[in-house]
Amino acid sequence: MASQKDIIKPAKRLSQVSRRSIWVEFGKLNQQYKPVNVGQGFPDYSPPDYLTETLATTIKSDNDLIHQYTRQQGHPRLVKNIASLYSKLHGRDIQAMTEVLVTNGGYGSIFSVISTFVDEGDEVIIIEPIFGPYMNVITYNGGIPVGIPLRPSEDNWRSSKGWKIDRKELEAAFSPKTKALVVNTPNNPLGKVFERDELEMIAEIVKKHNVLCISDEVYEWLIYPPNEHIRIATLPGMWERTVTISSAGKAFSATGWKIGWSIGPENLISHIAAFHRNAVSLLPTITQEAVAIALEREAKLLGTDESYFLEIAASLLKKRDFEVKILRAAGFDPVVPDGGYFIIADSSRFGRTFPEGASDEPYDAQFCKWMIREKGISTIPPSGFYYQHGKTAEKFIRFCFCKKDSTLKMLADALNKW
Amino acid sequence: MASQKDIIKPAKRLSQVSRRSIWVEFGKLNQQYKPVNVGQGFPDYSPPDYLTETLATTIKSDNDLIHQYTRQQGHPRLVKNIASLYSKLHGRDIQAMTEVLVTNGGYGSIFSVISTFVDEGDEVIIIEPIFGPYMNVITYNGGIPVGIPLRPSEDNWRSSKGWKIDRKELEAAFSPKTKALVVNTPNNPLGKVFERDELEMIAEIVKKHNVLCISDEVYEWLIYPPNEHIRIATLPGMWERTVTISSAGKAFSATGWKIGWSIGPENLISHIAAFHRNAVSLLPTITQEAVAIALEREAKLLGTDESYFLEIAASLLKKRDFEVKILRAAGFDPVVPDGGYFIIADSSRFGRTFPEGASDEPYDAQFCKWMIREKGISTIPPSGFYYQHGKTAEKFIRFCFCKKDSTLKMLADALNKW
Repeated sequence: MASQKDIIKPAKRLSQVSRRSIWVEFGKLNQQYKPVNVGQGFPDYSPPDYLTETLATTIKSDNDLIHQYTRQQGHPRLVKNIASLYSKLHGRDIQAMTEVLVTNGGYGSIFSVISTFVDEGDEVIIIEPIFGPYMNVITYNGGIPVGIPLRPSEDNWRSSKGWKIDRKELEAAFSPKTKALVVNTPNNPLGKVFERDELEMIAEIVKKHNVLCISDEVYEWLIYPPNEHIRIATLPGMWERTVTISSAGKAFSATGWKIGWSIGPENLISHIAAFHRNAVSLLPTITQEAVAIALEREAKLLGTDESYFLEIAASLLKKRDFEVKILRAAGFDPVVPDGGYFIIADSSRFGRTFPEGASDEPYDAQFCKWMIREKGISTIPPSGFYYQHGKTAEKFIRFCFCKKDSTLKMLADALNKW
Repeated sequence: MASQKDIIKPAKRLSQVSRRSIWVEFGKLNQQYKPVNVGQGFPDYSPPDYLTETLATTIKSDNDLIHQYTRQQGHPRLVKNIASLYSKLHGRDIQAMTEVLVTNGGYGSIFSVISTFVDEGDEVIIIEPIFGPYMNVITYNGGIPVGIPLRPSEDNWRSSKGWKIDRKELEAAFSPKTKALVVNTPNNPLGKVFERDELEMIAEIVKKHNVLCISDEVYEWLIYPPNEHIRIATLPGMWERTVTISSAGKAFSATGWKIGWSIGPENLISHIAAFHRNAVSLLPTITQEAVAIALEREAKLLGTDESYFLEIAASLLKKRDFEVKILRAAGFDPVVPDGGYFIIADSSRFGRTFPEGASDEPYDAQFCKWMIREKGISTIPPSGFYYQHGKTAEKFIRFCFCKKDSTLKMLADALNKW
């Protein structure tokens, strides 16, 4: 009799899923070396008090059903408030019950949208760099990522604005097999906020080829003046073909709550909801209720001094400027981001620390691991954000700045010692 | 130019996912008719105060990271306490970091385990009746459900003990394509608690054919004396091939929290964790922390008068007996369950309310919808829990009894009027 080790093998499609994960790997290194952690993108400060208080009140609510299942496609109060807020932002009447799907964080939306639409052999154009798991989720579903790089301009690469896609390169990436294009603005890890003319160019080509547009806008509120967040779904003819992904975790500095959503036209959302019902069933009620109440508040305060979204962006702008300054002082050459909470910084001035070919790991991954071990600083290598054009950024390192001032001060000290 | 409606179609594999869902359908009917709801399986009473208080305290904790991402495979404190509790229950040393995976409710474990192991063309034996989504998840992954019925014995079908699988039928269901077997004890909707000799028989055949065993034990604490919950993974040679699924939502009367887990040997769990990392990434931190603290308490109080698990089972036993009594008084003929919080009851004494062939819906679905409209009582049709042997139970109706005494009193009144 064969042992179960010989027989109970995972399904073949799992071979498309990497057993390695930089998040797991760096998580373990962080546990071992206890470095200053400016790696993974989560705030080390708390969400706004009113949010946690809302949740605490929700938990003690005398509604007997608040701790039980809610609606599968999204808690009624939450989808209503999402629809209401985004109706304002999109200048269109978004339907709560049919045009919104609540997911386990923005990540849950990514997995659901791609699993719903990407078939065996479909090509998906991704504008690189992009959040790494997109590549895994596409290939898991039998799809083929096609990477179009944001190329740094020679004279302006120190601003995220200076990283652009080339129109000809984008057009050449389309084929009869193209099913979808993914755009992420503000972009992780670059912090680029796509400008109107750039999104118009993408929209024009996406419409011409009649493909789905997946717009990942989880950093939509983290925009530094005078930049403006433009939603590609609001461009002419784009609502009908766009699924827009948002994240309460990013918006409210509560990444551990894992509430995100997709919005889009019913004929797209209904398919994703069918997939999601089968794959996930439904999400926690209490956090959905609390996010619903918080969005109601924010919708009222939009643009005022009391808006948390404005407050957090203002706070992060100061942290960005501080981190840029200390990185420069240490010899890094940062790309100043217009949005998001990451900075990628060129490490070339340190010379080539690791000889080519000494490891099968990309240069930046080796450099980041060495930084944890030797310099007590944990960062993330951008190569994980590339499918085809990793060389573009192999000398860059990603630093997060959504950290307490005391953490950033520790980073300054560690950089100083270096 | 074709419109996007013509082009942006879902992936072919989605055709395996039903667009209909009894949960959505009955949810809408419930909203419309406001019946006494003894349908969907969630308590309409609150979880224990200590659980909600633990969560409230967790939310206000001065740990700055409690609202941020935690470990992907499961929050460290939670997996530690799961491993510790189940080590006791299984009489083996279960490893927190490698033999436990936390998921979005028990449902998240079902989707992950099946997606990880079931390949195109693989057969999965399911002991019917069983929670309906199993069938959807298996076919979505290209697998083929093979149903083996629990057959009611002529003289003892009014007890869930009287529903048994036939050994020859089970043996005949295996083929070279069989990849896994699913057993659910206590069983939903029947309330059958599998006895040791039945599980030994299943284990023997599963080992002989060297397949994976998926043991869905989400109702593990809802057992009525003198019945005993037996974990198939504790039978000789079974740990190595079994993934056991549990649910904090069921255990703590908090279905809306959506925390569940799988336990099993590392060489199975590591594959599921790789799938899960790609499909889900990670789960909320605060509810994992609160469930961790609650499990720590329960592990200490196991078997004592202060154990919530014992308390809730004792409370539910009374509700079961009350519901059995009022169903009988109304003319239903219930199957008395040994576990879980459902009763299926024969509706034959009402005669055939709907002529055969008048609708393409199963008889019980028609009966349940008629009950909502005409009798103001919401139940669930068992046909959704069958893949191949729906006829076995088409005259039965599923009633839930995890409801407040006042709700059960309203049910009694509605049945009385009938």
